[in-house]
Amino acid sequence: MQSFKLTLAYDGAAYCGWQIQQGQLTIQEVLEGALGSVTGETIRVTGSGRTDSGVHALGQVVSFESGTSLSLVDLKRAMNATLPDDMAVVEIAYAPPKFHAIRDAVRKRYRYVLHDGPTPDVFGRRYAWHNRHRLDTAAMHRAAQVLVGRHDFRSFQSLGAGRQTSIRTVLHVGVERRPEPDADRIYLEIEADGFLYNMVRAIVGTLVHIGRGRRPESWLQEVLESRDRQQAGMNAPPHGLFLLRVEFE
Amino acid sequence: MQSFKLTLAYDGAAYCGWQIQQGQLTIQEVLEGALGSVTGETIRVTGSGRTDSGVHALGQVVSFESGTSLSLVDLKRAMNATLPDDMAVVEIAYAPPKFHAIRDAVRKRYRYVLHDGPTPDVFGRRYAWHNRHRLDTAAMHRAAQVLVGRHDFRSFQSLGAGRQTSIRTVLHVGVERRPEPDADRIYLEIEADGFLYNMVRAIVGTLVHIGRGRRPESWLQEVLESRDRQQAGMNAPPHGLFLLRVEFE
Repeated sequence: MQSFKLTLAYDGAAYCGWQIQQGQLTIQEVLEGALGSVTGETIRVTGSGRTDSGVHALGQVVSFESGTSLSLVDLKRAMNATLPDDMAVVEIAYAPPKFHAIRDAVRKRYRYVLHDGPTPDVFGRRYAWHNRHRLDTAAMHRAAQVLVGRHDFRSFQSLGAGRQTSIRTVLHVGVERRPEPDADRIYLEIEADGFLYNMVRAIVGTLVHIGRGRRPESWLQEVLESRDRQQAGMNAPPHGLFLLRVEFE
Repeated sequence: MQSFKLTLAYDGAAYCGWQIQQGQLTIQEVLEGALGSVTGETIRVTGSGRTDSGVHALGQVVSFESGTSLSLVDLKRAMNATLPDDMAVVEIAYAPPKFHAIRDAVRKRYRYVLHDGPTPDVFGRRYAWHNRHRLDTAAMHRAAQVLVGRHDFRSFQSLGAGRQTSIRTVLHVGVERRPEPDADRIYLEIEADGFLYNMVRAIVGTLVHIGRGRRPESWLQEVLESRDRQQAGMNAPPHGLFLLRVEFE
């Protein structure tokens, strides 16, 4: 048996998230089905990020084992011919024995896409959260810097996750308007050693209050220090969120 | 009554094209319905380009008359609140009396989007034609230049259109790969004083044979001069095509 590292992109709109659930269509189930058709084996996969319903990925990383004799090029081609057109294998590589996409991940990066143009974007509407109010991205960027470092992010965690600790280390956070002709589009990117349940969406839902000028920049620090989910904003909707990449040792 | 010029963007995927047809969902019908709800009048519109089923628009121009007392700003806002999220009013302006979106149009520009990356683009799949083979865009661009000028474009016209003449003047055609990180995406843009039925899609379907190296660059001239639709390639699929803009005197 050989260990594999597969990088997967998907449009999450049609799926009830990553993780297999009885009676629901999930990314994991469709991926395992395609791997089964292509290799003739029964393959169980592990995904680095258990993305929620409606959340997308540009670089989800998946580990699995297989005894297939297909080359990597043929495996990728066969997978992309088998998968539905809202899922695509970006890369497939051999991995060290016992490679595990969750245990071995050291950093993850998410992107959240906002759109604040005066006209709704009919082509980007599935992949960005539209705000009718212009957002002050410089203020959002400055405010967000208090997240960098090792903190208890309990204020930005939804219940029902069951993680043992809510302490995480954020390595980078940036809020940036895209260059023309795409200047109505804003990327928030955040990298950490791990994320709590709904953490990025809660951070975005909080930062937009600062971007709209309804709260001062200093408010984010207050929310963080309160360790109280009630103090933060609502979760931003899932369709603006992308799992961008996962890094390993 | 006042004449209006309305610029409309739409994702054509869900519609049977622009023009009202009994029993089919069309852009024109949905737009007229929204104008009716917003103004309380029965409004008939004229669209510059009668886009086909599945074809998109970034800048369809529509003329209509109305006695509404709403300001342009309020009219745009009310229309965008009323239209479904795959249609958006980009701009709305007063027009000279008897402004007519077809009769007064002097130039139209279409964009066709191709994708030739090694991995299917899950986020762009609805808005680009995916070619698994790498395309030589420089060869396509050079070959396309024979289209510029006044020619009989009968070779690139589908039947059933009933236009009186197949002579048109192409003012510009360009084939260009997008800059990184989007270099798997190719824009073909073509501007003319008018277009025949399926003309852009037939030109694209022909040019890809040159892009793949299956035909020499000189082939496009042969096809043009043959005045025979059988000599050209298949129509490229509608979901890569965008009506980009319409210009008036």
